[in-house]
Amino acid sequence: MVVVMDIGADEAQIESVIATLNDHGFDVHRSSGSQRTVLGAVGVKPEFDKRHIELLDGVYTVHRVSEPYKFASRSWKKEPTESKVGNVVIGGKEIAVMAGPCSVESEEQIHASAEAVARAGAKILRGGAFKPRSSPYSFQGLGEEGLVMMREAADAHGLAVVTELMDPSHADLMAKYADMVQIGARNMQNFPLLRAAGQLGLPVLLKRGLSATIQEWLMSAEYILAENNPDVVLCERGIRTFETMTRNTLDLSAVPVVKARSHLPVVVDPSHGTGIRNKVLPMARAGVAAGADGLMIEVHPDPDAALSDGPQSLHIPQFDELMAQIRLIAEAIGRSVG
Amino acid sequence: MVVVMDIGADEAQIESVIATLNDHGFDVHRSSGSQRTVLGAVGVKPEFDKRHIELLDGVYTVHRVSEPYKFASRSWKKEPTESKVGNVVIGGKEIAVMAGPCSVESEEQIHASAEAVARAGAKILRGGAFKPRSSPYSFQGLGEEGLVMMREAADAHGLAVVTELMDPSHADLMAKYADMVQIGARNMQNFPLLRAAGQLGLPVLLKRGLSATIQEWLMSAEYILAENNPDVVLCERGIRTFETMTRNTLDLSAVPVVKARSHLPVVVDPSHGTGIRNKVLPMARAGVAAGADGLMIEVHPDPDAALSDGPQSLHIPQFDELMAQIRLIAEAIGRSVG
Amino acid sequence: MVVVMDIGADEAQIESVIATLNDHGFDVHRSSGSQRTVLGAVGVKPEFDKRHIELLDGVYTVHRVSEPYKFASRSWKKEPTESKVGNVVIGGKEIAVMAGPCSVESEEQIHASAEAVARAGAKILRGGAFKPRSSPYSFQGLGEEGLVMMREAADAHGLAVVTELMDPSHADLMAKYADMVQIGARNMQNFPLLRAAGQLGLPVLLKRGLSATIQEWLMSAEYILAENNPDVVLCERGIRTFETMTRNTLDLSAVPVVKARSHLPVVVDPSHGTGIRNKVLPMARAGVAAGADGLMIEVHPDPDAALSDGPQSLHIPQFDELMAQIRLIAEAIGRSVG
Amino acid sequence: MVVVMDIGADEAQIESVIATLNDHGFDVHRSSGSQRTVLGAVGVKPEFDKRHIELLDGVYTVHRVSEPYKFASRSWKKEPTESKVGNVVIGGKEIAVMAGPCSVESEEQIHASAEAVARAGAKILRGGAFKPRSSPYSFQGLGEEGLVMMREAADAHGLAVVTELMDPSHADLMAKYADMVQIGARNMQNFPLLRAAGQLGLPVLLKRGLSATIQEWLMSAEYILAENNPDVVLCERGIRTFETMTRNTLDLSAVPVVKARSHLPVVVDPSHGTGIRNKVLPMARAGVAAGADGLMIEVHPDPDAALSDGPQSLHIPQFDELMAQIRLIAEAIGRSVG
Repeated sequence: MVVVMDIGADEAQIESVIATLNDHGFDVHRSSGSQRTVLGAVGVKPEFDKRHIELLDGVYTVHRVSEPYKFASRSWKKEPTESKVGNVVIGGKEIAVMAGPCSVESEEQIHASAEAVARAGAKILRGGAFKPRSSPYSFQGLGEEGLVMMREAADAHGLAVVTELMDPSHADLMAKYADMVQIGARNMQNFPLLRAAGQLGLPVLLKRGLSATIQEWLMSAEYILAENNPDVVLCERGIRTFETMTRNTLDLSAVPVVKARSHLPVVVDPSHGTGIRNKVLPMARAGVAAGADGLMIEVHPDPDAALSDGPQSLHIPQFDELMAQIRLIAEAIGRSVG
Repeated sequence: MVVVMDIGADEAQIESVIATLNDHGFDVHRSSGSQRTVLGAVGVKPEFDKRHIELLDGVYTVHRVSEPYKFASRSWKKEPTESKVGNVVIGGKEIAVMAGPCSVESEEQIHASAEAVARAGAKILRGGAFKPRSSPYSFQGLGEEGLVMMREAADAHGLAVVTELMDPSHADLMAKYADMVQIGARNMQNFPLLRAAGQLGLPVLLKRGLSATIQEWLMSAEYILAENNPDVVLCERGIRTFETMTRNTLDLSAVPVVKARSHLPVVVDPSHGTGIRNKVLPMARAGVAAGADGLMIEVHPDPDAALSDGPQSLHIPQFDELMAQIRLIAEAIGRSVG
Repeated sequence: MVVVMDIGADEAQIESVIATLNDHGFDVHRSSGSQRTVLGAVGVKPEFDKRHIELLDGVYTVHRVSEPYKFASRSWKKEPTESKVGNVVIGGKEIAVMAGPCSVESEEQIHASAEAVARAGAKILRGGAFKPRSSPYSFQGLGEEGLVMMREAADAHGLAVVTELMDPSHADLMAKYADMVQIGARNMQNFPLLRAAGQLGLPVLLKRGLSATIQEWLMSAEYILAENNPDVVLCERGIRTFETMTRNTLDLSAVPVVKARSHLPVVVDPSHGTGIRNKVLPMARAGVAAGADGLMIEVHPDPDAALSDGPQSLHIPQFDELMAQIRLIAEAIGRSVG
Repeated sequence: MVVVMDIGADEAQIESVIATLNDHGFDVHRSSGSQRTVLGAVGVKPEFDKRHIELLDGVYTVHRVSEPYKFASRSWKKEPTESKVGNVVIGGKEIAVMAGPCSVESEEQIHASAEAVARAGAKILRGGAFKPRSSPYSFQGLGEEGLVMMREAADAHGLAVVTELMDPSHADLMAKYADMVQIGARNMQNFPLLRAAGQLGLPVLLKRGLSATIQEWLMSAEYILAENNPDVVLCERGIRTFETMTRNTLDLSAVPVVKARSHLPVVVDPSHGTGIRNKVLPMARAGVAAGADGLMIEVHPDPDAALSDGPQSLHIPQFDELMAQIRLIAEAIGRSVG
């Protein structure tokens, strides 16, 4: 931690700051410039709140120099992590595609979805069984019944299953039916849920919160990793900005940033990222071109009749087209699509 | 709902949109201007996803005309709601002050806090017993033991108790020890938790999420109100913006906006809103001047030794000064502080 | 324009709103639903301020239904615009690449830049001669001398020239040396400058402001188009968000959004969009994959010695690699790079 | 400047960074912790671009420790600046109120405005004569004729005049008619204009840009101060956020932040900050309570007929009420209103 003193800070103030740092267990190196004194404080604990120092008299600013997470960082693990979901690898040379409807609605619907996405080359079936929504009056999902249907449909077409964990009390259900659990954007800082996901022992797809910085996203990953669960896959799905012509602003530059800071794989969800069907294809291409390890795409056999998120779900022929196009993009950058 | 067609939309497109609207159960009024056709669709259900219409051929934009919530709106209830927390009224002429430490840390600490805030005129004691934090390595709270201490301290000084509900499984504990439960900013869209809070039957303090629009905040209030719990108090505590010199940007204009749209009381939390002790006093004054029905303030008998949020907690003499100043502001606008 | 009345609005209020609309020159169609009355107001002028109606008694919300711009819209011109800069077309099948240093610094530097970017396949040389900066103490550019150097270097390598117009009084200089003028992000709403650019008769590269919505960006384009200058090329260069790990957040979804709303070409600037050299390549690929008509890239023969923006400028071999990679991406989506 | 090396940075990388820092003219102090090496670089120039160091191999992050401005900072000048506009002091104990219409529209209108605001206790008349607007089709102001009218109206009622400088070429007109010039939010980083304002010798009201950080705002103030013009008054008028129920988000916490960082006075503009008349009064009160040195308020004798910004302009009786209320708030915090 580096403490920068005010230009006019006097000796008594400087010594008082040093004493406080010592009280908090830091070793302090003092260096005096022509204008300011700068203190290097060595031995910071991850949970130290730097504002304790910021508000001391004579302090100008305080900078932390270590990351507030450990297991999620590149410093801790140099080589990229490859996570196995069923028998699909995320984080290797192959781009992993997770596709399916927003919600499981019926046996027919989920089977038709599974068949279509498998045929087009996706390896993981997505679908929600528990769907608390921003309005209490919207469709809330089929629950366990939906999980049963999705598992059967996935097995019938050789797909793995990813579905959202909404409540720690659903952990057993997830263990029974899913190959990977998803933490939704709204729950990215629901810490009891992150712990439960970590303890479950399944790979976790961690969506970025609407207003989460990349650093906070990695700190939420740390919650899961700290439970000895090494399989966290990050998912960029759009952040909230002032722009209203798209539902969210898909932050594709997060892909190279995360790859520089962390060893974890990162996938892109252009369906939630844009919120409207006809923007999904170009942004899926862009996601792959930016270096994402996978895509999460909403597809529905009859989007106009979907009970949730139909407008951002692709028709099956559109998904076929998407797979054909991203295959070309992947090849252009030396990767492949299954 | 109002559907605006493209300038060049042809008759077939218009008729197809009308047919789709009819399929979704709308009555349609058509009106043709010199340039565009506009369709008024009557009978929208709260959960209807307008993007179903937005992506039809020939559609330019779609506007919802009804609010996506009911019980939270001024249209549904004209007179302001007054909520009773213990025997304190929030939403009346008197400004309600909730104060205390971020976390309950010890019997001594919470008693000293309770004594000080009661003496200065606060009526509700705040304090956290369960504190999952953004870092998994930070202090996580005393749990039930903390609730016991806080209840005793509050009773000893005639205060009501507000504390955060983090997990639906803690509902019984809350019923036993608290007069009001708080939903934290990070959980504003944790829908199972909102339901649990609604069913608990205690008044709920609903903090605004970091990136929540006022409309989404009111929709989260609707989740609680829809469980037949009429006592929701909204709490503005800062939103996330590009500015980094404050921890968050306290959106005080939300106070008059909420009061125009909703009948619910609204309080302001300048401690989290600014994140640093010496900004709390001016922003507390400003909150009262803007028309807030109350304040939530972090106070600690020894902030430098606090296990969480010390840097934004006031020293007790600072809190005394704050109470003296807001009393003058309250009087200037025809209100009072207990 | 559509005026939605409050649920409880009474007949006198409705009639008063209708009268006010008539006073402003609107024809009004009234339609009454079970809950609310909705008024369709036909004949809105582009400059009408809808807040005049929003604040009338009994009004719930007001929506404009027409775009606040005309010449920039797809409704006005269906086919995509192709702009000619020197003899380079922007907006056609070929991806146009503009490259060069942030600032012209010396004859040697600009010639080395021109040679390198031409050899790699770029067609337009970029470089600034007037560089007012966010700090008054930074390098401010070579002025006309810089323009002379850039023109010569461009001519020597068969390139067109794009450079920034900072001040209406520089219009003559631009006419003499440039093939296209650029309006910088900070000047996107400097209206006297937009007018001057429109009157100049050269194609204009209009950068998106840091906090400009897509609609405001198109309104600024309208300023130029309204001067009978049809050649506006839009340039996405990142918007301001809460994320601090990148300088700006490159909003690539603006590319498909703009293409749906407008006929104007759109290019992407990943150098300013990310602010750091090693993010430029992946975001350039992503920009092309998203459908951009061109790229603007900062390249410098010796970035470590650059007088401005060196850290986001590519080394020449990195630019060669970028050109090779975007060529493959362009082919994957049926386009080409010169 | 503090350079933090990666945990795994090797000796060669560290020495290479030190060499580069020396090349840029820094003295370097090296300190090695158990995990990382930290380099203190003394002697940074205000214009140094820290990204030059950030992208060197083995560097984790770089923090600047000195402010990028000088004359605007509290370190440079401890005592608060009081600026004189005509014979009105801004920055003293008295709250300065600037009020008047958005645009000067006619002799009658500006005289009625001046009379009303003077009677209510405002000391400075505001009004625009040059009004380039976001739409090219809106009213663009009366030009010099408007300035003449405003000067006469102000003189008739003992008021000073503040008006917006849009174009460096209008400097002479300003010198002739105005007591203070305003730099609008959209021009906050129009550097040629800032220079012109600085050279004019009149006090400058510098509005904060919609997406400007407080640091950038102070850097723009530095442009003016660096021209030996000490009279800069900062004006908070709302920033752009994701919230759409207000036109902008008035960032009142900027008031105490600016006062801690700078000696310059700061005023609040709740008219632009909220964009709608009935939010102006509570936010004006809140601005004064937060510690602002003044207010800028739009008032119009007939807002419904105003040619610009009528909906956010107060009726005269509303302005009288505002003045009465802020007088009480000012007294509550030991200040006064003229």
